[in-house]
Amino acid sequence: MNILVVNPNSTVAMTRKIVAAAQKAAGTGVTITGATASGTPASIEGHYDEAMSVPGLLACVENAEAQGVDGIVVACFDDPGIGACREIATGPVLGLCEAAVKAASMLATSFTVVTTLPRSVPVIERLVHGYGLSHQCRRVRSAQIPVLALEDPGSNARDKVRAEILRAVEEDRCEAVVLGCAGMADLAQWLSAETGVPVIDGVGVATRMVEALVACGLKTSKINGYSRPNTK
Amino acid sequence: MNILVVNPNSTVAMTRKIVAAAQKAAGTGVTITGATASGTPASIEGHYDEAMSVPGLLACVENAEAQGVDGIVVACFDDPGIGACREIATGPVLGLCEAAVKAASMLATSFTVVTTLPRSVPVIERLVHGYGLSHQCRRVRSAQIPVLALEDPGSNARDKVRAEILRAVEEDRCEAVVLGCAGMADLAQWLSAETGVPVIDGVGVATRMVEALVACGLKTSKINGYSRPNTK
Amino acid sequence: MNILVVNPNSTVAMTRKIVAAAQKAAGTGVTITGATASGTPASIEGHYDEAMSVPGLLACVENAEAQGVDGIVVACFDDPGIGACREIATGPVLGLCEAAVKAASMLATSFTVVTTLPRSVPVIERLVHGYGLSHQCRRVRSAQIPVLALEDPGSNARDKVRAEILRAVEEDRCEAVVLGCAGMADLAQWLSAETGVPVIDGVGVATRMVEALVACGLKTSKINGYSRPNTK
Amino acid sequence: MNILVVNPNSTVAMTRKIVAAAQKAAGTGVTITGATASGTPASIEGHYDEAMSVPGLLACVENAEAQGVDGIVVACFDDPGIGACREIATGPVLGLCEAAVKAASMLATSFTVVTTLPRSVPVIERLVHGYGLSHQCRRVRSAQIPVLALEDPGSNARDKVRAEILRAVEEDRCEAVVLGCAGMADLAQWLSAETGVPVIDGVGVATRMVEALVACGLKTSKINGYSRPNTK
Amino acid sequence: MNILVVNPNSTVAMTRKIVAAAQKAAGTGVTITGATASGTPASIEGHYDEAMSVPGLLACVENAEAQGVDGIVVACFDDPGIGACREIATGPVLGLCEAAVKAASMLATSFTVVTTLPRSVPVIERLVHGYGLSHQCRRVRSAQIPVLALEDPGSNARDKVRAEILRAVEEDRCEAVVLGCAGMADLAQWLSAETGVPVIDGVGVATRMVEALVACGLKTSKINGYSRPNTK
Amino acid sequence: MNILVVNPNSTVAMTRKIVAAAQKAAGTGVTITGATASGTPASIEGHYDEAMSVPGLLACVENAEAQGVDGIVVACFDDPGIGACREIATGPVLGLCEAAVKAASMLATSFTVVTTLPRSVPVIERLVHGYGLSHQCRRVRSAQIPVLALEDPGSNARDKVRAEILRAVEEDRCEAVVLGCAGMADLAQWLSAETGVPVIDGVGVATRMVEALVACGLKTSKINGYSRPNTK
Repeated sequence: MNILVVNPNSTVAMTRKIVAAAQKAAGTGVTITGATASGTPASIEGHYDEAMSVPGLLACVENAEAQGVDGIVVACFDDPGIGACREIATGPVLGLCEAAVKAASMLATSFTVVTTLPRSVPVIERLVHGYGLSHQCRRVRSAQIPVLALEDPGSNARDKVRAEILRAVEEDRCEAVVLGCAGMADLAQWLSAETGVPVIDGVGVATRMVEALVACGLKTSKINGYSRPNTK
Repeated sequence: MNILVVNPNSTVAMTRKIVAAAQKAAGTGVTITGATASGTPASIEGHYDEAMSVPGLLACVENAEAQGVDGIVVACFDDPGIGACREIATGPVLGLCEAAVKAASMLATSFTVVTTLPRSVPVIERLVHGYGLSHQCRRVRSAQIPVLALEDPGSNARDKVRAEILRAVEEDRCEAVVLGCAGMADLAQWLSAETGVPVIDGVGVATRMVEALVACGLKTSKINGYSRPNTK
Repeated sequence: MNILVVNPNSTVAMTRKIVAAAQKAAGTGVTITGATASGTPASIEGHYDEAMSVPGLLACVENAEAQGVDGIVVACFDDPGIGACREIATGPVLGLCEAAVKAASMLATSFTVVTTLPRSVPVIERLVHGYGLSHQCRRVRSAQIPVLALEDPGSNARDKVRAEILRAVEEDRCEAVVLGCAGMADLAQWLSAETGVPVIDGVGVATRMVEALVACGLKTSKINGYSRPNTK
Repeated sequence: MNILVVNPNSTVAMTRKIVAAAQKAAGTGVTITGATASGTPASIEGHYDEAMSVPGLLACVENAEAQGVDGIVVACFDDPGIGACREIATGPVLGLCEAAVKAASMLATSFTVVTTLPRSVPVIERLVHGYGLSHQCRRVRSAQIPVLALEDPGSNARDKVRAEILRAVEEDRCEAVVLGCAGMADLAQWLSAETGVPVIDGVGVATRMVEALVACGLKTSKINGYSRPNTK
Repeated sequence: MNILVVNPNSTVAMTRKIVAAAQKAAGTGVTITGATASGTPASIEGHYDEAMSVPGLLACVENAEAQGVDGIVVACFDDPGIGACREIATGPVLGLCEAAVKAASMLATSFTVVTTLPRSVPVIERLVHGYGLSHQCRRVRSAQIPVLALEDPGSNARDKVRAEILRAVEEDRCEAVVLGCAGMADLAQWLSAETGVPVIDGVGVATRMVEALVACGLKTSKINGYSRPNTK
Repeated sequence: MNILVVNPNSTVAMTRKIVAAAQKAAGTGVTITGATASGTPASIEGHYDEAMSVPGLLACVENAEAQGVDGIVVACFDDPGIGACREIATGPVLGLCEAAVKAASMLATSFTVVTTLPRSVPVIERLVHGYGLSHQCRRVRSAQIPVLALEDPGSNARDKVRAEILRAVEEDRCEAVVLGCAGMADLAQWLSAETGVPVIDGVGVATRMVEALVACGLKTSKINGYSRPNTK
């Protein structure tokens, strides 16, 4: 089984981290192919960055489809271009937010999302509302760090995320925490150990859930909503 | 007051019709500038077309911002890239769906949306859900016509839209009808006369509502969600 | 175009302030006619005052309809008698709450409403829920001031409203603030300057939105919900 | 225990029927006092009638409060002025819609409301939405009869209601039916026998529920929302 | 009229308290029969206890049905097995949570639930969501006491509940408080006097509401959802 | 990895079919252990059957936990006792409905559930509402067949399910169909081929999703809601 894991931003170091997390999660016999969208912003911080990342993302998906990929992970927590990807994909397509919050809803009665910047909070709130899980989401919080600080070993980004998780447990009475940025993919295990709360990383969960859907023979429906783009 | 009305698809004939509708609706002292996004699909039929229209749309917005525009109408009923436009805009930004369904909710206790193709139905349902108006929206229907058939005088597109409105009134018990495509902008008056139900075109309403917000001195909030894109 | 702006309470000083705000917002060629409902409470603080204001309000609307008014603003944030007004009106009818929260939802991803007394908070929460915007409304707050304190230059009402807005920005993480009382119509600009957050006054927005609907040729639907009252 | 049952419209024949239904439902030791609001419409068909009935209704409530009533039923399915009544009442206050749909939600997983005229359908839909029971309400239907036809023995109103209930069971797959007009109070038992589906009349249920709340020592909360009207 | 009040847990002392509260609330001519489910947990603290209490609860209901009971109260705030009870019951069946929160929603615009342990909070939140009253429920709080501490006169459980109610009034701005455990049935009056806020006990309300439904001739619908269990 | 797949009803033939479906879906290195709850109804048709199946189901889970199982599938579409199972389980626990509708929501913009008997329709509607997916669920339909007819090769159950799916596609405009009974686990592929719409079986999806969560190192949160049952 071949799964494409696309990083919609153009930071290759982040792709490497993401692909490592996907490979760690993937089952036997699954080949993970990483891709970095080109011509896209270095990080996705808000609606504009998200929109500018989509054509590059779609090019990666089209390329992979031409080579016969079985399923696709869009490795960004803002779930950019998911509907568009689903139209051109044959197999299942998942973004990190959808995968992670649906997983969280299976493991705990409530969860909090911890993301990077305050500007991403309403983006994620709207996604969670659309996925129908507002009643299980205690709050979307930001650790007040730029996305790329997570790539900088000298920054205190990890500590800020840990501190925000501890605040979430204390103030939100949440039972699980979802990491709200693909760049946190390598931190889940450490953060869970440090805080004592289940911490969910979207990269691993999305990869393995796409694998699950493919293994069950399921594909993206081609009736109406996600049917292939019309030729004009 | 200067209002930009952008057609996110690349069909210039459609832009002409849209600009005419905007100009007809605009108040005294308002200058409407039309723009056609370039490098975008000829029509927006589904998520993929929508995503591919956004960079071209944003270029038009950036260009208008540089020239000091006061408000912006994104003249497509799928409300593409609205969040992204709001990040780079100073004044208010409205898409057709948001403007039209909010207007409909002020004029009737319920409404039905009539759009072009079945594939656009779930796109619009999701928008209406996000705008919080599902409880007033009886149904989103399609007249089973491609968008560009509305540009073809020889097609029976107009009749199909009229027939679908009559079905909506009969079957949905709706009190108003929202036209779910920018290409129907010139039909609202005729359809209303033919069917006896208030018919709402998004182009006029969006234009005049942006004008209303500008006239009240209101601008897009620059706190968090729609703050200007970060430089990396 | 003639727009009636009715103050449903009987305090003429408040009508004057409201009409001034409406006139400031209205476009070229729009005549604003102010009216004060008679035999109604001096201020509308809660459900009882609201109910007692409606027959006087409806009399003003009937009178204006007889003279051929094009649209109507009910200048109270509790949106009293809107459905009843819509039944007897030909043109569009808007209350301040509906206009202001729908405007806020177009300018920011979230907003907080700041009203006068704690007793008005649940009234407004119920309205916002009915308009489908609970998911964008962070909180409805009160500045703990009686409505008529806003008419008393010697009171510290203005300062209390400003302080409450600052608390809203800090505690609610809202991106815009809606003023939850018609008596605050003259404060929006000052409060916005003082607090750095977009502050939305319902009087101006409702006036200009009614104008927008009228300009687009839209009227209140006469099918079912808002059809003219039955003769018995 | 003294319970006031107010008919907000001015048709005394209807009050008689309502009081009979209330008395039939009331427990031992409960005195039902009927009242007909004066100066109000002969029937309540839509928002305007509803609004015009409220001052007369409130006068009845004030009068009863002065005499020490324990609880109040507002005997109209549009639940007019309930919030206002609660502000001036000491004991519990219930309208027919709230009582009946909450009762229905306890007896069946879903229900349909059958009311008189199409114009009342959206009024009731909005109430049900406000009471949080949209997910259990299959549909609000009208039997296409004016309210006062129910008072005319020569009309076929009863048969039309029966026919509509049968359609509801067939088409809506509902498990119970709520009668959506106080004027149907005498029909519940007959309709239930004729149709084989539980049929709920709001007058009986509201009366006995108010009695239940009073018996438990519960009164309308006087904190904020329903606190007594402010003196100006 | 005969009403069964079943305590689904096996603590007889709690049954005694519950039956006393039910008898105090019941009207003239109503016989309350208490029952303690056997083979069930000593207290219901969470999903597992709840599930393990249901077969014993259903046995009590079957036994009472055989003897011709008119209505049933399931005296636990987690509303265990309500759907199952409704299938085998002829008359109405109510759990404490459904009865109490629906009563609260009639007496105040908002309420807070105060329960025993933190683990019960999400159970109750899910119930309130299912009953459609999330928008009136400010918060579900726990007083951090085990259920059986309420049976221990030497514990400080009562004081902890009182303190939590005071925090609810202060922090949640609620207008009423619902006691979230059957074991608090004897505290409502004292707590209301101590805190000045209406305090609602589910036992009394559920008993008297079942009585109300029975008195109105209403039974559990036997169409689909609550029809009698199929024989295999 | 060891996954327990429990059939909560006592029909061993059904367990065999379920285990086969689970094994077909499971990844390399996953051992599926089937279990049939004992002392439970032969099929789960409604709330009563569901409740009576839970203690037997919990016994199977406890037994498996003692032997160190990694994750658990509760193989019934009514999701019986899921919260209770999660309290006593260490790893993830999924019911068929939750798994299948969340999967469907990832593959199509809307879906319809086709179950066996009309009495199960409201049970599933309530589950879907609780999972937050009502807005994507077009309808829950029944094929009007008893559960055990699916075990009878001589019945026309399969044909009735196929016919109901075709009606769903036609009338509901759904883009995918979820099979609403564990006994349909062997039909998904055939039904999908016959109807041309993606058909989702919960057994396979739940198994592979539990596997996904386990593979990501995720366990059921032990904070509050799903913490281990208290010892009394």
